[in-house]
Amino acid sequence: MSKLVIVGTVAFDAIETPFGKTDKILGGAATYIGLAASLFKVDGAIVSIVGGDFPKENLRMLEEKGMDLSGLEVVESGKTFFWSGKYHNDMNTRDTLVTDLNVLADFNPKVPENYRNSQVVMLGNLHPLVQLSVIEQMESPRLIVLDTMNFWMDNALDDLKKVIAKVDVVTINDEEARQLSGEYSLVKAAQKIMEMGPEYVVIKKGEHGALLFGNDDVFFAPAMPLREVFDPTGAGDTFAGGFTGYLAKTENYTFSNMKNAVINGSALASFCVEKFGPERLLELSNKEVYQRLNQFKSLTQFDIRLT
Amino acid sequence: MSKLVIVGTVAFDAIETPFGKTDKILGGAATYIGLAASLFKVDGAIVSIVGGDFPKENLRMLEEKGMDLSGLEVVESGKTFFWSGKYHNDMNTRDTLVTDLNVLADFNPKVPENYRNSQVVMLGNLHPLVQLSVIEQMESPRLIVLDTMNFWMDNALDDLKKVIAKVDVVTINDEEARQLSGEYSLVKAAQKIMEMGPEYVVIKKGEHGALLFGNDDVFFAPAMPLREVFDPTGAGDTFAGGFTGYLAKTENYTFSNMKNAVINGSALASFCVEKFGPERLLELSNKEVYQRLNQFKSLTQFDIRLT
Repeated sequence: MSKLVIVGTVAFDAIETPFGKTDKILGGAATYIGLAASLFKVDGAIVSIVGGDFPKENLRMLEEKGMDLSGLEVVESGKTFFWSGKYHNDMNTRDTLVTDLNVLADFNPKVPENYRNSQVVMLGNLHPLVQLSVIEQMESPRLIVLDTMNFWMDNALDDLKKVIAKVDVVTINDEEARQLSGEYSLVKAAQKIMEMGPEYVVIKKGEHGALLFGNDDVFFAPAMPLREVFDPTGAGDTFAGGFTGYLAKTENYTFSNMKNAVINGSALASFCVEKFGPERLLELSNKEVYQRLNQFKSLTQFDIRLT
Repeated sequence: MSKLVIVGTVAFDAIETPFGKTDKILGGAATYIGLAASLFKVDGAIVSIVGGDFPKENLRMLEEKGMDLSGLEVVESGKTFFWSGKYHNDMNTRDTLVTDLNVLADFNPKVPENYRNSQVVMLGNLHPLVQLSVIEQMESPRLIVLDTMNFWMDNALDDLKKVIAKVDVVTINDEEARQLSGEYSLVKAAQKIMEMGPEYVVIKKGEHGALLFGNDDVFFAPAMPLREVFDPTGAGDTFAGGFTGYLAKTENYTFSNMKNAVINGSALASFCVEKFGPERLLELSNKEVYQRLNQFKSLTQFDIRLT
C-alpha cells in the first residue's frame, strides 16, 4: 500500500440548502478528502492549517480515521478558515456568502519528513503556489492529482498553469474545464488541458457524473440517481479522496485501474450529498460502501455480446 | 424476430444550428425511428401521413431500408407537416420558428392489416388520441413504447394520461418528466410516472445520457462524448428507434435486455447528432455501429471485483 499526502483546507463551513441550514460545522477540502481516503485504510497525512478555535475533538476524529496530522499546523492565536454558502433550489449553483481566509492567508505547507517519499499526492483546491510548494517537497511521487477552481483561473492563472504542468491528473468541473481551455466541447477541453502537461483529466459534472480522459481513452461514471440530494458540499473533494485513496491502496496507476478509482470516488460522493457536511462520511461503514459499489455495477454494466 | 409498428410524423424540417442552416430537409419522428430500427433489419411498418409535395424518392428510400409504407397515407392535395427550429449556442435549448401541421391536422392512423399482430409498437410524439387509436388497432402487442413531449402536457393532459396508462414504456426528457410528475428528483419523477401505468420509464437527458427505471431497478447510459455536436434534431427519436428495434430483433423484454436496448439507442443517437438531420443515419454502416458499441463498452465498463 502506498502512502498518500493530502494538502487542502481544514475549515468551518456554514451551509444553507432548500432542506435547512447549519451553524459552523466541520468542513474543508482536506477533511473530505481525508475522510474518503480513510475508508481504504491508506497511510495518509493531511497537510493543512487551523486556528486555536478549531475543536481538538475534530483533530482526534481525523487521527482515529488513520490520518497523520503532524503536518497540520495549529496557530493558537489565529482563527480557522471559514466559508459560508447558500445553494439554489436546483442544487447545481450556489452563492458564496462569506470567505474568511484567517490563518489560511499565511499558510506555508510543510510535508512531514516521513511522508516526503509518499507515492500519491492529492493537491486539494488552494492557491497554486501552495500546491507547487508541496510538489517541491516530495521526493519521487508516482502520481500527483490536482484539484482547482475558477477562482484561481481568474486570479492566478500563470501560477495555476505552472502547477498544472507538473501534475499527472487534473480534476475540475465542466464549466471550469471550459474556462481553462476556451473550448465548449468537453472532449476538446480535456485535450487542451492534457496539452498543458497532465496525462489524465477528470471532468466532474455534479449530478451528471464524471468523465475520465487519458491519451485516446475516455471513461464515464454516472452520479448515483438519488431520491434526494441534501447538501452537495464536499462532494467533489470526497470524489478526489475516493479516487486517490483507491489508487494508493491498489498501487496501480493505469487507465484501466483509474476507471475503478473513478467509480469508487463516485460511490463515496453519492453518500456525501445525503446529509449536511461530512456527517454521512463520518458514520459510513465498509458494508454500505460495498453495497453502493454493487449498485454502481447494476447501474452501468450491460451484456451486449460483440463478436 | 418481432414485427414493429411505428407511428409518428414524416415531415420536412428546416434547422439552424451554430454550424449552419438547412432548407427543407427530410425529418419527422417516424423517419428517425424507422431509419434507426432498420439497422436491426426488423420487419417494420411506418404509420403516418404526408402531402403531395413529399418527394417520392424519400418514400423509396424508406422502403429500401426495409420499412413497409402501406400505412403511410399520401394526401396528394395536401402539404406535408413542416417544422422549423433554431438551436442556441449550447445546443441544449432551441426555439421553434414554424409549426405547420398541414395534413397532420386530420391524421387518422390506420395500422396495415398484416401488422396488427406486431409484438412491438413505437408511438412517436403525436397527439395522445392518435397514439391511443393505434393501440386500439393492435391485437396483442408484447411491448408498447410511448414518446411524448411537454406540448401535450400543456394542451391534452387528460388524453395523455389515458394513453400513458396503456403503455409499457414511456420515454420522456428530464424537464418533461419533472413537469408530468411534479417532482424535481428524477428518481421520484420516474416512480410517479410508473404509478400512472407503465412498467418502465426512460428519462432522456440529452448530452447527459439516459436513465432506464423499472420496478426497483435503474440503469444509466451516457451520451457518447463527442468532439462536436452538429445538430441534435432527431436524436431522441433515433434513440427510440434503436431501443425498440433492438427489442423487436431480440424478442426479449426483460429489464436486463432493455439495458442493452438503451445502449443501442444511445449509440445510434450519437451518430445522428454528427450531421444535419438524418444524413448520418442514411449512410451508417453496420461496421460503424459495431465500433461505436465497442466504444460504449470501454466508456462504461469497469472491473471492480466485489467479493
